[in-house]
Amino acid sequence: MAQESVDLLINARWVIPVRPAGVVLENASVAVSEGKIVGVCEAAEAKARYVAKETVDLPNHVVAPGLINTHGHLAMSLFRGMADDLPLMEWLSHHIWPAEGKWVSDEFVRDGSKLAMAEMLLGGTTTFSDMYFYPDAVAEEATRLGMRCQIVFPVIDFPVPGAATAEESIHKGLALHDEYKHSDLVRIGFGPHAPYTVSDDKFEQVVTLANQLDMPVQVHLHETAGEVQEGLEKTGKRPTERLHELGLLTPNTQCVHMTQINERDLEILQETGAHVVHCPESNLKLASGFCPLDRLLKAGVNVALGTDGAASNNDLDMLGELQTAAMLAKAVAQDAAAVSAFQALEIATINGAKALGMESVTGSLEAGKWADIMAVDLSGIEVQPVYHVASHLAYSTKSSQVSHVWTSGVAQVKEQKLLNMDVRELRTKVDAWREKIANTAEAN
Amino acid sequence: MAQESVDLLINARWVIPVRPAGVVLENASVAVSEGKIVGVCEAAEAKARYVAKETVDLPNHVVAPGLINTHGHLAMSLFRGMADDLPLMEWLSHHIWPAEGKWVSDEFVRDGSKLAMAEMLLGGTTTFSDMYFYPDAVAEEATRLGMRCQIVFPVIDFPVPGAATAEESIHKGLALHDEYKHSDLVRIGFGPHAPYTVSDDKFEQVVTLANQLDMPVQVHLHETAGEVQEGLEKTGKRPTERLHELGLLTPNTQCVHMTQINERDLEILQETGAHVVHCPESNLKLASGFCPLDRLLKAGVNVALGTDGAASNNDLDMLGELQTAAMLAKAVAQDAAAVSAFQALEIATINGAKALGMESVTGSLEAGKWADIMAVDLSGIEVQPVYHVASHLAYSTKSSQVSHVWTSGVAQVKEQKLLNMDVRELRTKVDAWREKIANTAEAN
Repeated sequence: MAQESVDLLINARWVIPVRPAGVVLENASVAVSEGKIVGVCEAAEAKARYVAKETVDLPNHVVAPGLINTHGHLAMSLFRGMADDLPLMEWLSHHIWPAEGKWVSDEFVRDGSKLAMAEMLLGGTTTFSDMYFYPDAVAEEATRLGMRCQIVFPVIDFPVPGAATAEESIHKGLALHDEYKHSDLVRIGFGPHAPYTVSDDKFEQVVTLANQLDMPVQVHLHETAGEVQEGLEKTGKRPTERLHELGLLTPNTQCVHMTQINERDLEILQETGAHVVHCPESNLKLASGFCPLDRLLKAGVNVALGTDGAASNNDLDMLGELQTAAMLAKAVAQDAAAVSAFQALEIATINGAKALGMESVTGSLEAGKWADIMAVDLSGIEVQPVYHVASHLAYSTKSSQVSHVWTSGVAQVKEQKLLNMDVRELRTKVDAWREKIANTAEAN
Repeated sequence: MAQESVDLLINARWVIPVRPAGVVLENASVAVSEGKIVGVCEAAEAKARYVAKETVDLPNHVVAPGLINTHGHLAMSLFRGMADDLPLMEWLSHHIWPAEGKWVSDEFVRDGSKLAMAEMLLGGTTTFSDMYFYPDAVAEEATRLGMRCQIVFPVIDFPVPGAATAEESIHKGLALHDEYKHSDLVRIGFGPHAPYTVSDDKFEQVVTLANQLDMPVQVHLHETAGEVQEGLEKTGKRPTERLHELGLLTPNTQCVHMTQINERDLEILQETGAHVVHCPESNLKLASGFCPLDRLLKAGVNVALGTDGAASNNDLDMLGELQTAAMLAKAVAQDAAAVSAFQALEIATINGAKALGMESVTGSLEAGKWADIMAVDLSGIEVQPVYHVASHLAYSTKSSQVSHVWTSGVAQVKEQKLLNMDVRELRTKVDAWREKIANTAEAN
């Protein structure tokens, strides 16, 4: 049999492809050509089958799909730890909104998003979703770097940085969608902020346009009990019911947070095929509530995972997030058997791909998908012994152990160093923002 | 003024001494002589005041007290990730207890405890509490390495590895206490396992001896709602009430877990001065329940922090644990302002020292205390920007960023490498245990 020529062959101690589900391959290989996975098999078979231009040997590592951070506000990384331990409305009204009003610009978003991408890549994330301002700047930077993403532009009842009205934001957003409609990396969507900040007529506009153009929608929904209560008082309906009646909930829609779910909410999610994005650390830190992960998964709802913004987390560490999700789910379900290590890996990979409508191109290590890959080094004494490698990813490893990352087959991280970013220049810019923002905060 | 000669001067970008509370010093120094802290002050003042034999400059680091892991089962690190995602009783009966019965020996405890100490030191922990078997082996290894600890020997109604009866265990434990009574590092205490595994007469024996010899007591208490319910059914009392009536709860007693607390339990804790050890990740992973950290702190109860054993966590990462504690406390209290970053640092340092009766010797950076110190490197792009360094320790840093650790002024970790352990030899031993244990598990 003639050998097949490939660009890259990754040989690892373990490979968890995520699909097929529950599989761990030992001494296995991933073959990559033209940015895409062409085969996943045992190392011995790979050696016989492929001639590779480049071979990377990872003898102490587990190779898995790159992580998918399905909800974030990238540029808010510049506000990391600026204000903590405050009641939600005080945090928003006295710290976050004034700082946003004062500082957010195209340049702020560009620098903050690069900072976020640096942190995400170093932690094994290869695909993200962003909901913030100046979506064009994020799209440009993600494309330059080669990260896959969904970027949702703001739809909200008041002026935002970069758009004086929701109409202007939608107009710009649709132009951006048109610009990126053939992109392999960037998918543009609608980001109606939340039930309490978006009026019915704007939701209806989103529904019409999203359906017509087959565009994704991401919305904050049922983040707190207070939101649901307020919605009931104002509209007579729980927000999920209201958005459902407006036609917003479809398989193209991602509902972020969902800490409050009654039987009817669950039915709506099941009937519509809308996705849930679980952000456990943000929900804890802001005292928002507990999303019932196990209950949702058992009901057949697709649940993906997100870090939320670094201002309310305070990191974009998806390995840490999936560990928190896996542990918290058990306490919330009052069942130590709830949410297995493999399920935790799924919410951070393939479920994210499903939610973003990218299941056919990323989220697992399968032939034909883009080579979005991470490798985690399990050689450290602090993670020994290793009995079950999926358990290690779910409960024991740290993002600092992510040693290698590829997006579309392009090496982004090698031996824990970023390859395609000028980290020194980025640091200088971040330091300058810090200086300006801290001085204003102190002056308040 | 003549300069004072000191052994070690640590100059850091930031110092958080924990006492005085809430203080962050910028460009500050810690001076150490004969293993003890002699001064904490601004770097300029230190330069004028001290001549040091060794100077360590940490220009991007925050220096803080070494972390205190107030509850663990060290040697269980050899079972890390062996069995997860199982109902509690199945996990114990079919995995942990059979494995312990088959494998636990003096050698197992020695190797497993060294593995745990390696992980703890790398993560900034300088003092620990251990509750396991062969306490003499742990005391010997801790002393050799120079780690401060409380070791509680088992008191339980059935035979354990190393002791056929509770009487034998107590007899050996008291001899060990006598052996270490002048030790600066090791404090021996009683470890009555839990209300449901220890009879009244044994608790009474513990009370008599602990009072007489002024020895600490650590007990698992109110770990689950089921335990409380079962206690009520069997004895007519909640376990906390029962132990209180037996005289067990004193300022020398540490109650581990306490996920169930009613008004009367809280009163008992307040009246007796008994300490609570919070193990949030174990409580989540085993679906045990939620310890109300904020409520306890507000009631004036001293709450310390522990990782529990690596078999139910699955790491001994105290920075991760304090981050989980800080975030979870807010959701449990339904208050985003509950438990500040500084309070989170306290539960992981000075509160642990208080619980272990070591407040006069460790837990903060104050003159006269042992130099138990950690430094965390904040230079990585993934933790930028830094507005409030205490917030970073509570919400953003990873144990892998712990760069330097000293115990009693002896360098244990430098640039993230262990200095006083033969890591290669330890790895070989751990690998051998892994091999043996995994083969048996698969044969079951």
